[in-house]
Amino acid sequence: MLWCAERPRLFPAKCLMNQAQAANISERPRLELPSMFAEYRAGIGAALRETLDKDRPAFDLLRYYMGWVDPQGNPAAGTEGKYVRPTLCLFSCEAVGGSRENAMPAAAALELIHNFSLIHDDIQDRDETRHHRMTLWALWGIPKALVAGNVLRIVADSTLDDLQSAGVPPSRVISVVNQLTNAYIEMIEGQYLDIYFEGQSEIRLKQYLDMIARKTGALIRCAFTIGAVIGSPDANKDAASFKESGRALGFIFQVRDDILGIWGDERSTGKPVGADIRRKKNSFPAVYAMSAAKGADKRRLLDIYRKDEPNDADVEDVLHIMDGLGVREHAHILAVDEGEAAIEALASVEMDARARQEYKNLVEFLLYREH
Amino acid sequence: MLWCAERPRLFPAKCLMNQAQAANISERPRLELPSMFAEYRAGIGAALRETLDKDRPAFDLLRYYMGWVDPQGNPAAGTEGKYVRPTLCLFSCEAVGGSRENAMPAAAALELIHNFSLIHDDIQDRDETRHHRMTLWALWGIPKALVAGNVLRIVADSTLDDLQSAGVPPSRVISVVNQLTNAYIEMIEGQYLDIYFEGQSEIRLKQYLDMIARKTGALIRCAFTIGAVIGSPDANKDAASFKESGRALGFIFQVRDDILGIWGDERSTGKPVGADIRRKKNSFPAVYAMSAAKGADKRRLLDIYRKDEPNDADVEDVLHIMDGLGVREHAHILAVDEGEAAIEALASVEMDARARQEYKNLVEFLLYREH
Repeated sequence: MLWCAERPRLFPAKCLMNQAQAANISERPRLELPSMFAEYRAGIGAALRETLDKDRPAFDLLRYYMGWVDPQGNPAAGTEGKYVRPTLCLFSCEAVGGSRENAMPAAAALELIHNFSLIHDDIQDRDETRHHRMTLWALWGIPKALVAGNVLRIVADSTLDDLQSAGVPPSRVISVVNQLTNAYIEMIEGQYLDIYFEGQSEIRLKQYLDMIARKTGALIRCAFTIGAVIGSPDANKDAASFKESGRALGFIFQVRDDILGIWGDERSTGKPVGADIRRKKNSFPAVYAMSAAKGADKRRLLDIYRKDEPNDADVEDVLHIMDGLGVREHAHILAVDEGEAAIEALASVEMDARARQEYKNLVEFLLYREH
Repeated sequence: MLWCAERPRLFPAKCLMNQAQAANISERPRLELPSMFAEYRAGIGAALRETLDKDRPAFDLLRYYMGWVDPQGNPAAGTEGKYVRPTLCLFSCEAVGGSRENAMPAAAALELIHNFSLIHDDIQDRDETRHHRMTLWALWGIPKALVAGNVLRIVADSTLDDLQSAGVPPSRVISVVNQLTNAYIEMIEGQYLDIYFEGQSEIRLKQYLDMIARKTGALIRCAFTIGAVIGSPDANKDAASFKESGRALGFIFQVRDDILGIWGDERSTGKPVGADIRRKKNSFPAVYAMSAAKGADKRRLLDIYRKDEPNDADVEDVLHIMDGLGVREHAHILAVDEGEAAIEALASVEMDARARQEYKNLVEFLLYREH
């Protein structure tokens, strides 16, 4: 089993139920973005810029939020996001034989909807920075940021008008629009549940997983599915496989986010170790620890999570209790398990070998990413 | 011209350019809601309740906001709104020979979109009450209120799925959906401009009128137009007439709102005289006064509107300057003029005499309403 610890490839979960070994996995060298991200980046960026390249109310704020300009409107470089959702959409489209041009309007819509949700999320959480940049409400106040978010949501809708002229048959356009609408509903409901659970110190693991499946999972799953719906010669057959695989991707993505929110390297994440403990965020490690802890540990956790603001000693204690329970390792093992599921779900789909390998690289990246 | 002053019917604008007489108009006895409101109220209420009669995230907050329950979820009576937009939609549908059942899904969508905008507006303006009831953010905090607004926006969209099953032909469904989407975009952009103008003490009258044409006007105009699109035997012909008439209705509605925001009776409006001066709201009277005032009056206005919080003496001074400029009378005369336009726009539309009279009653109500 040496290869597992040294350079674990996929499917190591079952040989790594031993926590110490699982812990080794997480300390493997940082993975870079799979090549699909570089391949699609310029095209996605161009499509997105076109949607906001007009002199309309709030568009200046939105161009800033998308990372293209600074607060004064001067060009800024290297501050865009990773474009995870549009990249997934274009990849699944091409993996089944479609062309990226067909899927580009949907890819753009996904990224815009994602950013709409971030703009409103920043307001809800009163976060003044995201990825080392000031948030909209912090720069321009809540009223403008709130409406700018609503504007972006409409811009996202309107990009879908281009699907048909991009060559997607009407029946598939309808399917894509319906799936995006439903994913959007799930996402909003997930956001609501997330807020609803805030301050509740004992939510069940199942409740948490259901919430993140909506809040984060729905749009990622949708991205992966609608790409295939647009590109596949047999969309009815392939959609279900990509949906299941996309569901697993969403899970991996969020659980890794949760791990980084507590144990991530500040130089990569921009947040100190324990950040999500200090803000009492309902994340997988916190919910898992609360349900697994017993006796004095459980009482201590409850005490801390009922405080208004946990202090340094509290954060240390929570980290210690989580260590004792093997929370980090357990979270990682679950994610690895879903990584297997993500790969397996596409086993029956016709894809060329390169695309299949690229997908494995993607799953691995999502499992081990440091930012 | 005695009849003008005693009981002015429609079209008195031209005989009333004398400000003193115009002022008399505003002091006529309060008008009650035209009968169309009572006629459609129960049906609209039932359709709206059905859209939110499910156990989904945030629906409990939304049922409260719609006025059906108290904050604890117990039934509340008599706290719903006037249902202006859905009433306009059902009326225009039936006025041209359609049936209200066809238009009901669109009517419900209009009221839900309107309430979505109010929920977010309350957050933007930090208004803790609306129509004597606590607002969502004041009761449940900004995060929940913000997301609840987004949920309501989706619910509004989904009511439109029922148009086709309600018997509306597909081509008209598409037209209705497109018009609602465009009105929604205009409304959001208008909200953004409103915030953008805030704190600017000298916006031009044209800028203000353009802003309210979007913020308030777009949805009212759309309501009146899509009812006719659904109900008319010749939708292509009638749509333009209703659109122009609806545009004028939106103008009247907002200008009357602006008049009431300054000179309204506190017992009717729930706000003290001068309320919109104290909050430095960019309303028609303020923008008009700023552009019409000269010399010392102008300097005094600028001083006051640059203050953080005008005091009682400031409010008195502004009221005095507005009196001197005949702001209230001018606003009313412009509204009466648009009332003529609203009636005239429908002159070529085939409607029975009762509907035409009812429409005149409606215009009159909007011109003279006290709340």
